Amino acid sequence: MALNKTEKLYSGKAKDIYATEDADLVIMHFRDDTSAFDGIRKEQLAEKGVINNSINAFVMTYLADKGIPVHFQKKLSDTDSLVRRLTMIPVESVVRNFAAGSLVKRLGLTEGLPLKPSTYELFVKNDELHDPMVNDSLVVTLNMASQAQLDEMKRLSLEVNSHLVELFAKASMTLVDFKLEFGVAGDGTLCLGDEFSPDGCRIWDSATGEKMDKDRFRQNLGQVVDYYKEVAGRLGVDLNQGPNPD
Amino acid sequence: MALNKTEKLYSGKAKDIYATEDADLVIMHFRDDTSAFDGIRKEQLAEKGVINNSINAFVMTYLADKGIPVHFQKKLSDTDSLVRRLTMIPVESVVRNFAAGSLVKRLGLTEGLPLKPSTYELFVKNDELHDPMVNDSLVVTLNMASQAQLDEMKRLSLEVNSHLVELFAKASMTLVDFKLEFGVAGDGTLCLGDEFSPDGCRIWDSATGEKMDKDRFRQNLGQVVDYYKEVAGRLGVDLNQGPNPD
Repeated sequence: MALNKTEKLYSGKAKDIYATEDADLVIMHFRDDTSAFDGIRKEQLAEKGVINNSINAFVMTYLADKGIPVHFQKKLSDTDSLVRRLTMIPVESVVRNFAAGSLVKRLGLTEGLPLKPSTYELFVKNDELHDPMVNDSLVVTLNMASQAQLDEMKRLSLEVNSHLVELFAKASMTLVDFKLEFGVAGDGTLCLGDEFSPDGCRIWDSATGEKMDKDRFRQNLGQVVDYYKEVAGRLGVDLNQGPNPD
Repeated sequence: MALNKTEKLYSGKAKDIYATEDADLVIMHFRDDTSAFDGIRKEQLAEKGVINNSINAFVMTYLADKGIPVHFQKKLSDTDSLVRRLTMIPVESVVRNFAAGSLVKRLGLTEGLPLKPSTYELFVKNDELHDPMVNDSLVVTLNMASQAQLDEMKRLSLEVNSHLVELFAKASMTLVDFKLEFGVAGDGTLCLGDEFSPDGCRIWDSATGEKMDKDRFRQNLGQVVDYYKEVAGRLGVDLNQGPNPD
């Protein structure tokens, strides 16, 4: 039975989440909206929703094949995917392979400094507070997640990193850093949720160092969608592919 | 043999460090300077150096008696103490029992919220960068300390907290939070360094909630030194006591 969107459950900065007839499954709808600086700057970028839905489907399927528990089930249309319904943990995981973005400013580092071993940070998902950094101790004491969940989030994030560094490297791209969100499914499994797309990671062309991610939007470098398409193309994502078969 | 100050090694915001004839020992000189907001606001508060030197000597001796490795050796004069020379780890440890100060702003908490279990955070000691928060992963990757040192710093900080919460409670004071600094002595021992005084902690009167620490300076509440003296008095610190016997 094909599932239909019933009630809109949540509207984020770039996606909407809809309930379906199945209480354990929801539909993620990718919009063209692009935002930066905690939602202060917003723009519509034509085709971005379609591209990110496809890249996300490709990456999540790849990760699932590698044994990572993901909420992604299947692509439903150009802009929509079916995913398991999760109770989200309100803390974002950030893995970095090279210094860039906020870390450069916070710690006075040079952009591009290799980080070995890769670093792992936690940030509270809260635009008003500008996504403040936290650590295990604060998260546990403030009841945002258990230590066991945090340990699992870290383990999975670093495992995702190993797989994706390899995937991007084979396609002549350097995975600089990325953000993940996790949640708990109905059966208690901790799953990778949200999305993986150039909106939530940094990707540099391995040969030229050109930025191929949302930094093109943040830094007004132009051709944002062209570069997202290039990322998709290099990964072998077929942007014209329809929904997954039932 | 009495040791003398030879060369000035370091001048901090409230203390100077002098070399002595013994390469393993240095003299900490407590000044009356008081600073806040990463050194932007500075004032001289008469007697503060004398009071902090005495409180620090008292607290460090108390902690040493409890088995905590401290750099403190003995009080030399009203304003000076002899301590082991340490190679400092450039990361500050912060333990909190109640929400206050920067944590309240960062995470949007209510001042006075009990934190159970007590929280533990790391900050890079860097005024220009406004002491940015870090975590184990960043500290290790950026070579600021080893994981073993971080584990030991955390263990010791929480042990210090247990001892000091009890000490202050018996004197009708609530230890809200505090900052510690650690370093490595010549023989490789990780030691508690720097100082423990109302400059680097928050203390509230257990009955009235009145602030008895540097927040009186930061928040222009007045009577800063009077309250520091009250802290000393309640702890049983004898401000007229001379140097420790040789």
